[in-house]
Amino acid sequence: MYELTLIGIGTGNPDHLTLAAVRALNAQDLILIPNKGAGKDDLAALRHDICAAVIHSPGPHITEFELPERDTRTQDYRRRVDDWHDIIADIWWQNITTTCPDGGKIGFLVWGDPSLYDSTMRIAQRLKSRAAIQLTVIPGITSIQALTAAHAVPLNEINGAVTLTTGRQIRDGGWPASAETVVVMLDGQCSFQTLPQDGLHIWWTAYAGMKNEISISGPLAQVSTDILERRARARQEHGWLMDIYMLRRFAV
Amino acid sequence: MYELTLIGIGTGNPDHLTLAAVRALNAQDLILIPNKGAGKDDLAALRHDICAAVIHSPGPHITEFELPERDTRTQDYRRRVDDWHDIIADIWWQNITTTCPDGGKIGFLVWGDPSLYDSTMRIAQRLKSRAAIQLTVIPGITSIQALTAAHAVPLNEINGAVTLTTGRQIRDGGWPASAETVVVMLDGQCSFQTLPQDGLHIWWTAYAGMKNEISISGPLAQVSTDILERRARARQEHGWLMDIYMLRRFAV
Ligand SMILES: C[S@@+](CC[C@H](N)C(=O)[O-])C[C@H]1O[C@@H](n2cnc3c(N)ncnc32)[C@H](O)[C@@H]1O
Ligand SMILES: C[S@@+](CC[C@H](N)C(=O)[O-])C[C@H]1O[C@@H](n2cnc3c(N)ncnc32)[C@H](O)[C@@H]1O
Repeated sequence: MYELTLIGIGTGNPDHLTLAAVRALNAQDLILIPNKGAGKDDLAALRHDICAAVIHSPGPHITEFELPERDTRTQDYRRRVDDWHDIIADIWWQNITTTCPDGGKIGFLVWGDPSLYDSTMRIAQRLKSRAAIQLTVIPGITSIQALTAAHAVPLNEINGAVTLTTGRQIRDGGWPASAETVVVMLDGQCSFQTLPQDGLHIWWTAYAGMKNEISISGPLAQVSTDILERRARARQEHGWLMDIYMLRRFAV
Repeated sequence: MYELTLIGIGTGNPDHLTLAAVRALNAQDLILIPNKGAGKDDLAALRHDICAAVIHSPGPHITEFELPERDTRTQDYRRRVDDWHDIIADIWWQNITTTCPDGGKIGFLVWGDPSLYDSTMRIAQRLKSRAAIQLTVIPGITSIQALTAAHAVPLNEINGAVTLTTGRQIRDGGWPASAETVVVMLDGQCSFQTLPQDGLHIWWTAYAGMKNEISISGPLAQVSTDILERRARARQEHGWLMDIYMLRRFAV
C-alpha cells in the first residue's frame, strides 16, 4: 500500500508554504524531486532548499531523478504529453520500489498548486494500475495568487468571470469568446503580442513571489515593449524565467 | 501612514495558513474582524480561532465590527455593491483612527485569497483618499484549490482553459461560450440546475477544507438530485453552508 501525497509548495517563496505542507513534508518516507538538467530553471535547488528549511532531522529519504525530455518526434501534442507521463511514471515506480519495496508514504513537491497546469496528478493516477495507491493533495498558493498579490489587484470584476488559459491557446484561438478577464500561463512567447493591442490592460509578473520578482502593468499598447525588453534582459541575467499575466478589457 | 495588509487565510482549514500569513498576523497593530450577525455563517468565530491559534501574546489589538447589510432598495446590483463598500470603508476608518490615530499596521483576515471574489481589496482602495495607505496582499489558498484537492482532480485538461464564474452569471448567461471547464462560486441557488444536464461532469464540495467537508462527483444528470438533498440537509444541520463546484464537458 502506497500513499502518494502531492504537496503544493507555492511558486518559489518559501513563506508561501502552508502549515499543512510543512507537516506533510515531514511525514513522508520518501520525497522524489525531479531534475530537468543543467541550463534549465533551478527549481530542483529550490525544492531542496525548501526541504532543508522545514524538515526536521532525520526526515524522509530525498531522491532526485532525471526528468526525461518529451519526444519531439511525436507529432501529436496530446500523444507526446501522454507518452512522456508514462515514462515518468516508470521512473517514479522504479525509485519508489527501490527505496520502499513494502509500501510507504511518498511525497512530491509540486510547484504552486497540484491541480493547476501540472502533470504530477496525472502521473500519480498511472501508478494505480501497479499497486494500491491512496492519493492525497495538499493545496498550494498558485502563480495566479502570486500575480494578483504582486499587483494588489482583484482577479475578477464584481460578479465577473475569469478565464485561465495558456499561451498556446491564445496564439491558436485569440481572445477567448466573450471573456472579460484572462490569465495567461505557460507562455514562453509573449503571446499577448498576437492580440489586438487596444482596449486591454495587462498586469505582468515574472518570478512571482520570488526575490527577483518583476512586475509591470498598464494599457497593453503602452507597456508591451517594456515587458518584452525587461523579460529578455531578466531571462539572460538569470538563465531562466517564469512569467504570468492577466489581461482585462476596458472601455475605449 | 497606514499599512493595510490583506491576509489570505484559506477557506476554513487552519492548516491552510501560509507561513507568511502567520508572520503577518503577528506583525499587526490592529486586526479588524467583520461580524455578519447571528444566524449567518460562523466565520467570525473561525477568524478568532485562527488568531488564537497562531498569534503570540501580547499580539495585535483585535476588534470586531458589525458588517452592515446591503441596501436592498437600491435596484442596480453594481450600485448596491458600491454603496455597501463605501459604508464599510467608513466603518473601517472609524475603527482604525480610534485605535491607531497616528498610523500603524492594520490587518484583515480574508477568506481564501484576497483577489478572488472578495470585497476587501476594493474597500481598502477607498481609504487611499483619506490617508497615505500602503497596501500589501498575502496570498491565500482559495476555495478552488480546496475543491480540487478534495477530489484529487486537475483543474484543467491538458493545455485546456478554465472559466471561473458565479451562480448569477450561470443563471443569466448559461454555459460560458466555448468553455470546457467551469468553476462556479457564490451560488446560493444550485444554478447547475438551469444548465442542460447531459454531457457534464460535476465535482461539488461544501465546507471545502473544513472538518465537515462533503464532496460528491459524477455525471451531472446522475448526481444532481443527490447534491440538492445533501446540501439542503447540511445547511439545516449547520445553519449555514458554503459550496463550490466544477463542471466539465465530456463527449456523449
Ligand atoms: C507548469 S505551470 C505550473 C503552475 C503551478 N502549478 C501553479 O499553481 O502556479 C508553470 C507556469 O506557471 C506560471 N508560474 C509558475 N510559477 C511562477 C512564478 N513564480 N512567476 C511567474 N509565473 C509562474 C508560469 O506561467 C509558468 O509557465
Ligand atoms: C465571497 S467568495 C470568497 C472566495 C474566497 N476569497 C476564496 O479565495 O475562495 C465566497 C464563495 O467562495 C466559495 N467558498 C469559500 N469558502 C468555501 C468553502 N470552505 N467551501 C466551499 N466553498 C467555499 C463559495 O462558492 C462561496 O460562495
